[in-house]
Amino acid sequence: MLIKIICGQMEVIPGRPDLNYQKISTLIRQAKIKQADILLLPEMCLPGYLIGDLWEQQTFLDDCSYYANQIAAQSQDICIIFGSVATEVGKINEDGRIRKYNAAYICQNGTMLPGYLGRNFIIKNALPNYREFDDARYFHSLQKLCAEENTALANVLQPVAITLKGQQLNLGIMLCEDGWTDNYQYNIPSILANKGAALLCNLSCSPYSLGKNKKRYRLFASQSQQAGIPLIYCNNIGIQNNGKNIFTYDGSSCVYAATGKPAAALPMFAEDMLEFTWDTETGAINTADLPIAPQQETAIIYHTLRYGTQQFLKQCGIKKMTIGLSGGIDSAVTATMYTDILGPENVLLLNLPSSYNSEATKNIAYHLAQKLRTNYAIMPITESCRHTEQQLTATPITNFSDNTIYNLQLSNLQRENIQARDRGARLIAAAAAAFGGAFSCNSNKSEIAIGYATFYGDICGALAMIGDLWKHQVYALGRYLNEEVFKDEIIPNEIFTIRPSAELSAEQTVGVGGDPLVYNYHDYLFKAFLERWHKITPADILRWYKNNSLASELGCTDQIIKEAFPDALTFIADLERWWKLFSGFAVAKRIQAPPILSLSKRSFGYDHREAQLTPYFSREYYQLKEELLN
Amino acid sequence: MLIKIICGQMEVIPGRPDLNYQKISTLIRQAKIKQADILLLPEMCLPGYLIGDLWEQQTFLDDCSYYANQIAAQSQDICIIFGSVATEVGKINEDGRIRKYNAAYICQNGTMLPGYLGRNFIIKNALPNYREFDDARYFHSLQKLCAEENTALANVLQPVAITLKGQQLNLGIMLCEDGWTDNYQYNIPSILANKGAALLCNLSCSPYSLGKNKKRYRLFASQSQQAGIPLIYCNNIGIQNNGKNIFTYDGSSCVYAATGKPAAALPMFAEDMLEFTWDTETGAINTADLPIAPQQETAIIYHTLRYGTQQFLKQCGIKKMTIGLSGGIDSAVTATMYTDILGPENVLLLNLPSSYNSEATKNIAYHLAQKLRTNYAIMPITESCRHTEQQLTATPITNFSDNTIYNLQLSNLQRENIQARDRGARLIAAAAAAFGGAFSCNSNKSEIAIGYATFYGDICGALAMIGDLWKHQVYALGRYLNEEVFKDEIIPNEIFTIRPSAELSAEQTVGVGGDPLVYNYHDYLFKAFLERWHKITPADILRWYKNNSLASELGCTDQIIKEAFPDALTFIADLERWWKLFSGFAVAKRIQAPPILSLSKRSFGYDHREAQLTPYFSREYYQLKEELLN
Repeated sequence: MLIKIICGQMEVIPGRPDLNYQKISTLIRQAKIKQADILLLPEMCLPGYLIGDLWEQQTFLDDCSYYANQIAAQSQDICIIFGSVATEVGKINEDGRIRKYNAAYICQNGTMLPGYLGRNFIIKNALPNYREFDDARYFHSLQKLCAEENTALANVLQPVAITLKGQQLNLGIMLCEDGWTDNYQYNIPSILANKGAALLCNLSCSPYSLGKNKKRYRLFASQSQQAGIPLIYCNNIGIQNNGKNIFTYDGSSCVYAATGKPAAALPMFAEDMLEFTWDTETGAINTADLPIAPQQETAIIYHTLRYGTQQFLKQCGIKKMTIGLSGGIDSAVTATMYTDILGPENVLLLNLPSSYNSEATKNIAYHLAQKLRTNYAIMPITESCRHTEQQLTATPITNFSDNTIYNLQLSNLQRENIQARDRGARLIAAAAAAFGGAFSCNSNKSEIAIGYATFYGDICGALAMIGDLWKHQVYALGRYLNEEVFKDEIIPNEIFTIRPSAELSAEQTVGVGGDPLVYNYHDYLFKAFLERWHKITPADILRWYKNNSLASELGCTDQIIKEAFPDALTFIADLERWWKLFSGFAVAKRIQAPPILSLSKRSFGYDHREAQLTPYFSREYYQLKEELLN
Repeated sequence: MLIKIICGQMEVIPGRPDLNYQKISTLIRQAKIKQADILLLPEMCLPGYLIGDLWEQQTFLDDCSYYANQIAAQSQDICIIFGSVATEVGKINEDGRIRKYNAAYICQNGTMLPGYLGRNFIIKNALPNYREFDDARYFHSLQKLCAEENTALANVLQPVAITLKGQQLNLGIMLCEDGWTDNYQYNIPSILANKGAALLCNLSCSPYSLGKNKKRYRLFASQSQQAGIPLIYCNNIGIQNNGKNIFTYDGSSCVYAATGKPAAALPMFAEDMLEFTWDTETGAINTADLPIAPQQETAIIYHTLRYGTQQFLKQCGIKKMTIGLSGGIDSAVTATMYTDILGPENVLLLNLPSSYNSEATKNIAYHLAQKLRTNYAIMPITESCRHTEQQLTATPITNFSDNTIYNLQLSNLQRENIQARDRGARLIAAAAAAFGGAFSCNSNKSEIAIGYATFYGDICGALAMIGDLWKHQVYALGRYLNEEVFKDEIIPNEIFTIRPSAELSAEQTVGVGGDPLVYNYHDYLFKAFLERWHKITPADILRWYKNNSLASELGCTDQIIKEAFPDALTFIADLERWWKLFSGFAVAKRIQAPPILSLSKRSFGYDHREAQLTPYFSREYYQLKEELLN
């Protein structure tokens, strides 16, 4: 028997069951026109997934139930499988709130089919609680329900039987993490296959991270191969966020043949339907589509940032963007991306020079704006900063304890921060409002890691678009924009060769001095602190340094370490300086930082949760330090 | 037999096992001098609890294990019971990271006694995942371990047997949430009592919220009474944070007699030892201490804010505070609190008038500073704002698409925000640095709820000390400071009677116009949106409005609602205006807001997790609206 299946890679709008229901209804109509037997939709496609504590609103949950029933009512001539929240009257979660399951509904003949334990839905068991996920905060797992009902999970887990064209078909339905079996007690796809599933379906709402698709293909290919049956992976597109991080959802829905070979896949970030037929006798998958070709990393970064930013601006209703343009690589890449996304007429670039800005960077800014054909203005900050310094140092301060009067003094660092805030909070924020829109945070991940930014100066704005890119990735994206997107030297070549500098003092001016970071080393050091599954601390770094394995462990060159640090003393001083900032004051800055568009395996924000603490060096660290210095 | 027990209500410093170990060693020495038989210490007293993803660092976990063994080594002449993290080599959590348990160690004769399932510790089962808690992110529960090892939890849970003076004693050891049994499947104290525990011990690391002690006393009293055995509740003091929220830990350790009567309790926020004897034959508790008297709410608010702020400043190394002093109640209360905490010599109050500030508020600011005897200065913003407006509107903007030139225009709202940022980012931030310290965020909870604040203007600073107080609570605290703390009219009486206003335009000047909020109604409306266990939305509000139960449901007066809203049309317009802000743009502001000192049952920040979404009105809302308007 030939079964026609459509996998609906839809855009899900988090927190809007009303809008998602409209989209789903359209998909159902289209699938019926195409005479599909089964329409498969993603996990949580009615409520969205990353919606924070909106899960605590009864009226919101009621609407999700209402629309779920409306979907079931449309399943007269088609089997509809979709994910949503399921609630249960009279039961509570362990926090005393309404009982909620991350559930999949299988609907046919206008009704919901029986699922697990007498419910009309099946229940997700593997609830992720790492990175951006908080599933245990909201959902009751199948395992907990089984314990309550005194039954074994292995007895409950089973394929759902549907009848199509008079024949019974056993579908092994899973929800997202249920298929990521590595570290969980139960291997759900294998249990379902052993219990006679003829087809595995994974309904996902899975955020994109660099490299994730490779892992997905490997994982699901191996599942279908081991089970010897086809597998469909259905994922949504769109963006969802948890406040501090914006996540993109790439879709990349895919059907795997019983051999494990991907038979067809949908492109990233596109709303589309994956259509194919499944021969229930042979298990063969027949499709016209082909897997998409793998892309080079910087191309994926470009497309993900572009899509994520575009969607974020749309959701927030931001149509125009103002960007402070220093002449450095970060603001140049940000400005070029926004021009690409919004069009030059909707971008205002502001160059805000003080007396410390070099002709080189001022010229770069001017030429970039001209090349991009955006709106552009030069607003010097010299007069305003002079006025601020004057006001701060000349205003008499009265000490009302003894009625003495004195003045404040400003250090050089304080004068630098005055400039940064004069740019960001005084001019850019106001100009952005007057231009009609928001302004951009141009901070990159290397700066955010150690708080090399000024509070209310440059770590502010609506979105840190490149906040999850290390400095070397920002350079690569800049080159990609010139070579592949604009196919022109939009970003002046000079920018790739000058030593980056904040230009906040005479010593920092480009051509004189630059940033205190050796990016070809520090990017990789900070990446080890943040991105490794087992987090790296200074003790690990010193151990590797002592063993001469540091460069290979970090992924940088030996040469850069040797050049930057002539001896252990300078190496250790540098390590302590940045570790103290990374785990100290930079945390305070990140707490008040704009949302970051997440892209990597671990981004700053809610993805990497942090408390403001005093920096900690472990016992092993002190031992290694003593050995190395003696 | 008489057993002498000491419950050590210690300050725990999160993320610093080295310092906590020193403190514990001191307590052990003192307990030995006092010839205690048992020393009971809090949950997670080595690592701290709210330390974010520090739990992912192997070197940190190694140090915790090392110090735990060092504590056990000191148990030669005493039984030491303490909480810490336990790791297990060769096992992983469901996220693939190192296996971690929230554990209690029971140590005697220099070693750790057997706990559960062959381990030398007992394991917490009830892992909270609500409000600020993320236990499932880090810890493996006893229930999951039992499932792995194919055994029933009820078989594993049992009292720990220790031998004292030749006699075996069964201690029922629980970790914090294990005792908060309301909504969990297993009632752990009751299981332990049924299995022969002669004494229940609850080791906690439990943050303080208003009203929590009442609930604690009720809960633990009922447990000891039902079991008919004494119960010791041992909690730490100090502060811990998760970035967006600072939580205080009040201690309030307490011993309950077998009748359920609290026999003795330690005061809030004080490091102390609770000493008593336990007669193992009769179960009697003998102690010299008495329970502390319950305090009035504003007194508790004052003490909690004072303690939490003091500890936060100490942890961050902040010794001086600068506060923008508008002459309104929020900054007046904040300034008075900081003067109380740091002393007047360490406080700089800045009055930053524009032409819109009334003589009334300027005088209040001056008199308050004089009364407090702090440092004080007046720094007008008129000239700087004029310069900014001039620069923004007169600087030519070039459109590089067509090479036309034009100017930006400023709206009234934009001119208001320029003033707010001129104060916060240009002057206060710089003056605070020059004065040598940080500056304060004076926002209250009512403003934070709907984002009635300017980005990088007034919703900035090191800490939102009163960010978890509704406006009416700020007034109450102001009166308390005058009447009970300073016993003088420090905050001028006038401030309590004038209508609050932002004074950013001629229309808003005090005496002319004021805030758009009717605090006696909106405080209670926003509280319902945020603080109820089952969150309230506009549909609930309209239902109550229609049923005439709104005032009693919210806790405000009928009169205020009737006065503010003559009809359903104005009522609904107001509701929609604030709901859209509450669930819309205010979320964006909170994402970048300073840390809030948490005090209530639900504070903005990590305690109430939010995504930036488009505001949602439910189906029921639209139905009710239509009914009310027709």
